Amino acid sequence: MAVYTHLGAEELADLIGEFNVGDLLSAKGIAEGVSNSNWLIETTQGRFILTMYERRIELSDLPYFLGLLDHLSAKHCPVPRTIHDREGAAFRMLDGKAVALIEFLPGVSPSHPTPEQAHSVGQVLAQMHLASGDFKISRANTMGFADNLRILEHCGDAGLASIHADLPQVLGPAKAAAALDLGSLPQTNIHADLFPDNVLMLGNEVTGLIDFYFACTGAMALDLATTHAAWSFASDSNEYNPQIGSALLSGYESVRPITPDERRLLPGIAKGAALRFVASRAEDWLDTPEDALVTRKDPMQFVERFRVYDKFGETLFAS
Amino acid sequence: MAVYTHLGAEELADLIGEFNVGDLLSAKGIAEGVSNSNWLIETTQGRFILTMYERRIELSDLPYFLGLLDHLSAKHCPVPRTIHDREGAAFRMLDGKAVALIEFLPGVSPSHPTPEQAHSVGQVLAQMHLASGDFKISRANTMGFADNLRILEHCGDAGLASIHADLPQVLGPAKAAAALDLGSLPQTNIHADLFPDNVLMLGNEVTGLIDFYFACTGAMALDLATTHAAWSFASDSNEYNPQIGSALLSGYESVRPITPDERRLLPGIAKGAALRFVASRAEDWLDTPEDALVTRKDPMQFVERFRVYDKFGETLFAS
Repeated sequence: MAVYTHLGAEELADLIGEFNVGDLLSAKGIAEGVSNSNWLIETTQGRFILTMYERRIELSDLPYFLGLLDHLSAKHCPVPRTIHDREGAAFRMLDGKAVALIEFLPGVSPSHPTPEQAHSVGQVLAQMHLASGDFKISRANTMGFADNLRILEHCGDAGLASIHADLPQVLGPAKAAAALDLGSLPQTNIHADLFPDNVLMLGNEVTGLIDFYFACTGAMALDLATTHAAWSFASDSNEYNPQIGSALLSGYESVRPITPDERRLLPGIAKGAALRFVASRAEDWLDTPEDALVTRKDPMQFVERFRVYDKFGETLFAS
Repeated sequence: MAVYTHLGAEELADLIGEFNVGDLLSAKGIAEGVSNSNWLIETTQGRFILTMYERRIELSDLPYFLGLLDHLSAKHCPVPRTIHDREGAAFRMLDGKAVALIEFLPGVSPSHPTPEQAHSVGQVLAQMHLASGDFKISRANTMGFADNLRILEHCGDAGLASIHADLPQVLGPAKAAAALDLGSLPQTNIHADLFPDNVLMLGNEVTGLIDFYFACTGAMALDLATTHAAWSFASDSNEYNPQIGSALLSGYESVRPITPDERRLLPGIAKGAALRFVASRAEDWLDTPEDALVTRKDPMQFVERFRVYDKFGETLFAS
């Protein structure tokens, strides 16, 4: 959470001048995004988010991420559309970095979602899955189950054990997840990281899905399971909340019914989805010096979620 | 530059509900303020800055800071007014920390000010000096010249020399500044930290003076000299820009003429004003571990500005 790059007012005004959005009135660096710098921009014509891509984002992926926003927005999914510049480009280069101007959407991210909110998120997720199927670009999932296994193996038994004695136990299940055949399930373009942080809401209404920088072409069921793992556990106690989990699934199914094949695989996919965050957090943990000012996220939080799916997955995803 | 405290959407909505400003529509943590957390808040009735006071700010000073904003705003100075809660309070306590809701003002802070912009800032500074004289509360300057001397002496010869070999040379001039009698000059309530960062502008118009957390009761000439030292040197090369310096002074004098006593003391005050930032930066430098992620500001930048005033001060402030 930071603004990595300083852009002066004059530079910002020049940049905004490249878009047909009126004159710059205000620019505030906002504390969002772990790999981007973001500014909340106000012009004489409206409000926008200016994003500068700092790292982790491949330039070659931008047409996919930004194009997907436009595709979904055109189909009335609540996602911010990309503002194209006067020459029609979705992003520009500034000091060697890509910058994009994105629609500002109202709403706040719930910290303690209610079942009603989870129901709405399920609906919008299904709506997005149906709408993104005919998007013309595709992008491989760089955080698929095979990648998670590779990351965990790279951390190694000793590395994992140095974080928590129980952590090496995930290697077996990560192998099992990597062996799942998700290719046979219904595919589309998925968000793949739909935590509450990445959803803007007003009351029970979803006003925006944001931060599509893990979006990829993949199994709808993977996105549903990831969203389930991200939403259904209390942010403080990490306890499973069955009302939230059920509401998310019933919201999803009110728009797009889960297929029998998906239902059969969902318990295993949910375990893999939980391990995806164990893998990324374990890697970050080992890469981050203990005395760094950055807060390391505990991978054990998602080991606990994995255990819930391991024990109760069949019941949780039963029709 | 950070948001130090996480406030959930539900907490924020509850908090905003304590003010008569409509319903919460959006909240973005903004990367401003070194000792506060700040959010740009949008409600059904407008936009606001929510500030949570984290450290360095004494709770007992808040009635002064927030009251001064209201006093100046009522006199049509371009400062954000404080939004009082439903009970009329200028700030509330949340989790043991004070929070205030402040008017949002448009504008951006110039990185490369023009003489026209400096002229406007001079005008507004003088307008503020005239308007704040009858504010009923007073606050002592905690970063006066005697404080600067104490800080530099506390850093010590060896400490200062560890930052830069030339740095101990400022101890003599800091002593001279501490001996100046500013009490005999015209007094008012001053901003005391009016860097370009703390001024919002649209073109040549000042739309907001912000960040009054060094404001205090003191000599108008001290504020003018501090603003001169903050604005008249290029942000990149640190070179003195005579057009900016002159424009600032002429803008100021177009609203409030400098008295002969002030003019006589201004060269010395400007040297002291430059040393004020040498002192705070030297202290921060020695307090901040070399490998901290925070960028330390080089005190030598203001030693160079001090030298300009030492050499040319008489000329720069001549009528």
